[in-house]
Amino acid sequence: MTNVERSVPKTLKLMDPSVQFRRSKAQCLGKADLSRRGSVDEDVKEIVQLLNSRDQFFTTSSCSGRILLIDGDSSGFEVQKQNCCWLLVTHKPCIKDDVMVALKKAGGDAILKFEPFILHVQCRQLQDAQLLHSVAIDSGFRNSGITVGKRGKTMLAVRSTHGLEVPLTHKGKLMVTEEYIDFLLNLANQKMEENKKRIERLYNCLQHALEMETTTKSQPKIRERNNLLSTHKKGRNPETVGDRCIAGQNDSKPEEDDDDPGFSVSLFPEEY
Amino acid sequence: MTNVERSVPKTLKLMDPSVQFRRSKAQCLGKADLSRRGSVDEDVKEIVQLLNSRDQFFTTSSCSGRILLIDGDSSGFEVQKQNCCWLLVTHKPCIKDDVMVALKKAGGDAILKFEPFILHVQCRQLQDAQLLHSVAIDSGFRNSGITVGKRGKTMLAVRSTHGLEVPLTHKGKLMVTEEYIDFLLNLANQKMEENKKRIERLYNCLQHALEMETTTKSQPKIRERNNLLSTHKKGRNPETVGDRCIAGQNDSKPEEDDDDPGFSVSLFPEEY
Repeated sequence: MTNVERSVPKTLKLMDPSVQFRRSKAQCLGKADLSRRGSVDEDVKEIVQLLNSRDQFFTTSSCSGRILLIDGDSSGFEVQKQNCCWLLVTHKPCIKDDVMVALKKAGGDAILKFEPFILHVQCRQLQDAQLLHSVAIDSGFRNSGITVGKRGKTMLAVRSTHGLEVPLTHKGKLMVTEEYIDFLLNLANQKMEENKKRIERLYNCLQHALEMETTTKSQPKIRERNNLLSTHKKGRNPETVGDRCIAGQNDSKPEEDDDDPGFSVSLFPEEY
Repeated sequence: MTNVERSVPKTLKLMDPSVQFRRSKAQCLGKADLSRRGSVDEDVKEIVQLLNSRDQFFTTSSCSGRILLIDGDSSGFEVQKQNCCWLLVTHKPCIKDDVMVALKKAGGDAILKFEPFILHVQCRQLQDAQLLHSVAIDSGFRNSGITVGKRGKTMLAVRSTHGLEVPLTHKGKLMVTEEYIDFLLNLANQKMEENKKRIERLYNCLQHALEMETTTKSQPKIRERNNLLSTHKKGRNPETVGDRCIAGQNDSKPEEDDDDPGFSVSLFPEEY
């Protein structure tokens, strides 16, 4: 789905924020999808639909995760996806032969990348973004973060730490063996699988959190109990999040955040 | 520098937020540095000092960027930095021989990574985090994001999109040639150089933004003019940020964000 922010009329800036949010949502979801694919990826449809069915959210862009082979120039600097040739892109597991065929077209520095799930969500209020951020962290998307614009536009980017970036050719010349590419694709496919599990986890956590939110809003006593729970919550015990939201062992330790500069950094919103 | 949140007394939770922030800052900066290195990396000292000299910020963790060789198990899943052996870590450019020597100790799946600059900053208020976030985006750190905790604790994570993650051995067996490792290290060293430039750019942008903020606070007319400027600012023209903050061409286009799922997504705070 595409971000249509630039086409939102200036007059909206003078409106009541919630009215402005509703209009921006209607306008964004009403627009044609301008992405290369032209539609939301299959694996994220459920999450996108769940978010867009709620008044406080709408999604502005998403990618379920993909294996990408790009042919960049040989300057050695960061490849710009727009200026380079896409030799191969797939949202499904990939076999060596596909890559070998695609590599025949490489004239520069081809790089194989695994890019994990990414989702951008516009949120009505900061507290909506906080809820979503907490759910994203619980689900293992530890590089997620909120953006708040000068005029209060609030976005959440759901980002994973789960990547792979491997140069394969230099000036068109293959630098690695076929055996290595085979090994590499096994890793990339495993990351794709793990990525899919995280997306499912995110969906379950989100569904659960939104249900909890609805319940607690209508039942103050439960809200108090949950506040008490979250105050005592340490180390992100999944049980306190509910059995429909089981964070994998690999995701329950802040030490494993790829942000981690070699020591423990707690980035869990609810511990703040 | 280390995050000492877990040792902040419960009583602080009842305090006035700005008093609590001052106390947390004093406590955090007063603590021993528990990082592997035991001190702030040379290349980020200036930024860390600049931020900590301001009432509205303190840094909780940082890494200037590094080339890392880790030996993980051969399960193929995401390597956990804590459970694996660090064969090599350097914050300076690296040569092939260093890696070849370190690889002799690899018994599992060794991975060479370039990890760019990362910085976590606790901010007194959301608007302080917004300013810092805007500066980070301007400087090319496009995966930066804000975290706001349930009790209002506001953090900014400055993150780059600028990485490299390349498996080199499988079950101790080298999967690539020495020539490839040489080529790879050239890339990693170039990324290290680019990373350093971005850190310098961040420092200049930050210094400039903090000066602007101080000036505008004391001179309302300038504030009006700047608001007008920022309203008209499109496409992050560096000139409007000032000549001490020149965003490189590669960093001035939202299309080049690694979040980009194949189309333009504007994530620039000031355009919101």
